[in-house]
Amino acid sequence: MIESITSLQNKLIKTVASLKQKKYRDELGLFIVEGIRLSEEALHSDWDIIYCVYDETVQSERLLAIVDALLGRDCKVVKASPAIYDKLTETKDSQGILVVVRRKVKSINQVMTAQNPVLVVLDSVQDPGNVGTVIRTADAAGCSAVLLTKGCADLFGGKTVRATMGSLFHLPCVSGLTKQELLECFKQHNIAAFATSLTASKEYFSVNFKQPIAIIFGNEGSGVSEEFLGGAEDRIHIPIYGQAESLNVAASAAVILYETVRQREEK
Amino acid sequence: MIESITSLQNKLIKTVASLKQKKYRDELGLFIVEGIRLSEEALHSDWDIIYCVYDETVQSERLLAIVDALLGRDCKVVKASPAIYDKLTETKDSQGILVVVRRKVKSINQVMTAQNPVLVVLDSVQDPGNVGTVIRTADAAGCSAVLLTKGCADLFGGKTVRATMGSLFHLPCVSGLTKQELLECFKQHNIAAFATSLTASKEYFSVNFKQPIAIIFGNEGSGVSEEFLGGAEDRIHIPIYGQAESLNVAASAAVILYETVRQREEK
Repeated sequence: MIESITSLQNKLIKTVASLKQKKYRDELGLFIVEGIRLSEEALHSDWDIIYCVYDETVQSERLLAIVDALLGRDCKVVKASPAIYDKLTETKDSQGILVVVRRKVKSINQVMTAQNPVLVVLDSVQDPGNVGTVIRTADAAGCSAVLLTKGCADLFGGKTVRATMGSLFHLPCVSGLTKQELLECFKQHNIAAFATSLTASKEYFSVNFKQPIAIIFGNEGSGVSEEFLGGAEDRIHIPIYGQAESLNVAASAAVILYETVRQREEK
Repeated sequence: MIESITSLQNKLIKTVASLKQKKYRDELGLFIVEGIRLSEEALHSDWDIIYCVYDETVQSERLLAIVDALLGRDCKVVKASPAIYDKLTETKDSQGILVVVRRKVKSINQVMTAQNPVLVVLDSVQDPGNVGTVIRTADAAGCSAVLLTKGCADLFGGKTVRATMGSLFHLPCVSGLTKQELLECFKQHNIAAFATSLTASKEYFSVNFKQPIAIIFGNEGSGVSEEFLGGAEDRIHIPIYGQAESLNVAASAAVILYETVRQREEK
């Protein structure tokens, strides 16, 4: 049954609105997935959708198909006036639908089962767009998992989720990790960790990516932290041919992750 | 001489504030460059800085060094209260300095002088962060120029300029071009144009990037337009190994532009 909500004081609306803040996302273990394409991705994933809110004035077959599919599940579906929906949306050109998804929390050991993995490590990457874009690229390049240290942008924040374009549902992402537990884990599983660094001596295409590897990308301003630089097997850099000082972190990840593919696809 | 401004009604402050809008940037031929690092980039470039506004309460040696350098030039330098500076800034954690730079308008023919060029074409790329990041990557990869069609995010908008991280001052960027003039120009100069497309048959690493080339990247939603797909020498794609539908346009550009480098550096 679709409930119609007309008051901003409605408890469900207040709960959904609270999820724009990390504090409440953490407390409730829920996050918002907004837009038609992303809601479809959530629907086709094995993650639990517990609420769906849509703007009752939006006419869209794809939107109604999502609503229909969710009515057959254990999910509360509500329609709201544009004024109420506007209070929930974080996007300018909203498509009039959002779903609330229950987080899946994975431990680092759960993602260590991949054969000959390519692990992507984000070390205090602060821009949610960068975090989301790296997850999308890691998915495209067939990487095994994305591991986020404490200090990264929230994996479940709206901007991060939107930038993943659904890849959050495709490959395991683990957040809130400490550098120490990551380095210990790599050691234990014989994974060669490569830290990206502007002052590294080795070019990214000159190292062996065919072995089990983790590639560490750093903060936008300060780069990879000392602890990882010291603890990694090797440091690598992308050569700069023009006058730019460095590449954006998501651009760096694209270059290096597709180099891992190139090496691994090589006969 | 440094003028101290205390009123929001000051004409210079009103002019600078107006530059947040494309309409006035176009009308006045000026744009805002904000932050210490970007102001330094502007200072060390051959672009003309006509105004500098800084927050008089910010204590920073680098900021004062910029101010000092500009006082020796034909540039109006003003200090403002935090309240006034706040009306001008577009960034959350402002560093308290911005400079206003006069646009350099280049024609497409002026950038066709490069030997064996790698030209980057953006076809209605709408996100300013993507446009700026591609320019930064093109600079890093040593590309010859970035060419923007009408319909791209404004090259001189604040977000675009910030995402270039100064690369806007390093390599020629031409905006407002039509597809037709680009295709004609490539033909005239024997430049092989490659259009990126999800449905292309050729993988990006299987084509010849050693010849004079232009690589066309498309709009975030709809990709490269029909006119370019039809007019290009070839279509190329980046293979997807996971479940992502596509890569972000700036990530795609990073992968492909560094492949052009790889081929060209090959002995």
